[in-house]
Amino acid sequence: MYKIVLVRHGESQWNQENRFTGWTDVDLSPKGIEEARKAGRTLKEEGFTFDLAYTSVLKRAIRTLWLIQEEMDLMWIPVKPSWRLNERHYGALQGLNKAETAEKYGEEQVKIWRRSYDVRPPMLNQGDERDPILDPRYRDLPRELVPLGECLKDTVARVLPYWNDEIVPSLKEGRKVLLVAHGNSIRALVKYLDNVSDQDILELNIPTGIPLLYELDENFKPISSRYLGDPEEIAKAQQAVANQGKAKK
Amino acid sequence: MYKIVLVRHGESQWNQENRFTGWTDVDLSPKGIEEARKAGRTLKEEGFTFDLAYTSVLKRAIRTLWLIQEEMDLMWIPVKPSWRLNERHYGALQGLNKAETAEKYGEEQVKIWRRSYDVRPPMLNQGDERDPILDPRYRDLPRELVPLGECLKDTVARVLPYWNDEIVPSLKEGRKVLLVAHGNSIRALVKYLDNVSDQDILELNIPTGIPLLYELDENFKPISSRYLGDPEEIAKAQQAVANQGKAKK
Repeated sequence: MYKIVLVRHGESQWNQENRFTGWTDVDLSPKGIEEARKAGRTLKEEGFTFDLAYTSVLKRAIRTLWLIQEEMDLMWIPVKPSWRLNERHYGALQGLNKAETAEKYGEEQVKIWRRSYDVRPPMLNQGDERDPILDPRYRDLPRELVPLGECLKDTVARVLPYWNDEIVPSLKEGRKVLLVAHGNSIRALVKYLDNVSDQDILELNIPTGIPLLYELDENFKPISSRYLGDPEEIAKAQQAVANQGKAKK
Repeated sequence: MYKIVLVRHGESQWNQENRFTGWTDVDLSPKGIEEARKAGRTLKEEGFTFDLAYTSVLKRAIRTLWLIQEEMDLMWIPVKPSWRLNERHYGALQGLNKAETAEKYGEEQVKIWRRSYDVRPPMLNQGDERDPILDPRYRDLPRELVPLGECLKDTVARVLPYWNDEIVPSLKEGRKVLLVAHGNSIRALVKYLDNVSDQDILELNIPTGIPLLYELDENFKPISSRYLGDPEEIAKAQQAVANQGKAKK
């Protein structure tokens, strides 16, 4: 039997501003820092340890991981960062807040982008200053892999090869794996592992900073999954995410 | 031509207490944190960037690296931690301060341990609570690789395979490499690169938190090496290390 713990990064500096973040590299808010530390303390108290960590190349996930490593006294474990674990790329919506988006594209259209699995947001133009290929961390990737905007289906498509080619082999070797990533890259994994429908995954919200433990059988299919920590706080966090989903993305 | 930047971690919490640290996993002091940030700012100001970092599995080096990554906005680069870049293991001296050591072993003997290249300190007994094999980060290594105490010659012997098998191939691939480690693991590299004699290496002190740039030819032999930053501060730092060497290790 295999185990893996998934953690969505703590609140970022843009969460409160209600802006589409995506691949924009914003840091944690003070509240997000506290959420990350708490995740580390929970994991330590529940007796977990890790010898390998995966994360995205975005600092709100990396900092969350670093804070967990600090709290667990595991600064020494190897960390593998990959763009494949990044948040969904929100295309031309990145950087806009809800009001700006509604004004530019209309409320109805924004609702469609938010609530559909396979309708892409307006894409960036190649060479837009937000085009990831201009950033050193994506510069050496083949152009066709670097998104100018993604629907959730696109995110799933680039997360799953990483699960199969990189994470599953590490679990097979007996590594104790922690993965710290984003709302939509974790959704992609949950969708695959729990075989969630294209429709239902849109209603499934991952709370920030609450470790999610999966126990997997020899075929890497889930035997069980559960959030770790105080049950009341888990319920509260899930409720908060659900409410946030009503008002904003 | 190849380039690599070496940085010795900032001052640790035990530096001021004048204790033999070795593989003891103490964190940076507030002064050490500031030294690390400054190293990052210097590297940024001088136009450096990196796409790969090496460090030890000790948190004073890892935290120094993290702070440099923060200052350079390079939190996303891959980091490879290895025990082979750890500080020299001080055997049974670890944890003792200068006065305790002199009392237990005599001033003369302590001087010999400090000033010789190939005389080992008193070794730990296997199973001593300080035996690294009891620590999860070394538990899976072959027993014969895990030191119970090292002279500088031993440290050189376990650092060099890492240079040749791991770091040189990365440089060959064109990676821009940063290495953050310890006084004696960096001494080991400098001894090898600059072909320093067994005697002279003991007089060669590496200042904390001052980036040391090596430019290497196609055979990975040094073309030049220099400390980066304000020349006056570099001179001051080197002088401070030399003075410290007179009073303590």
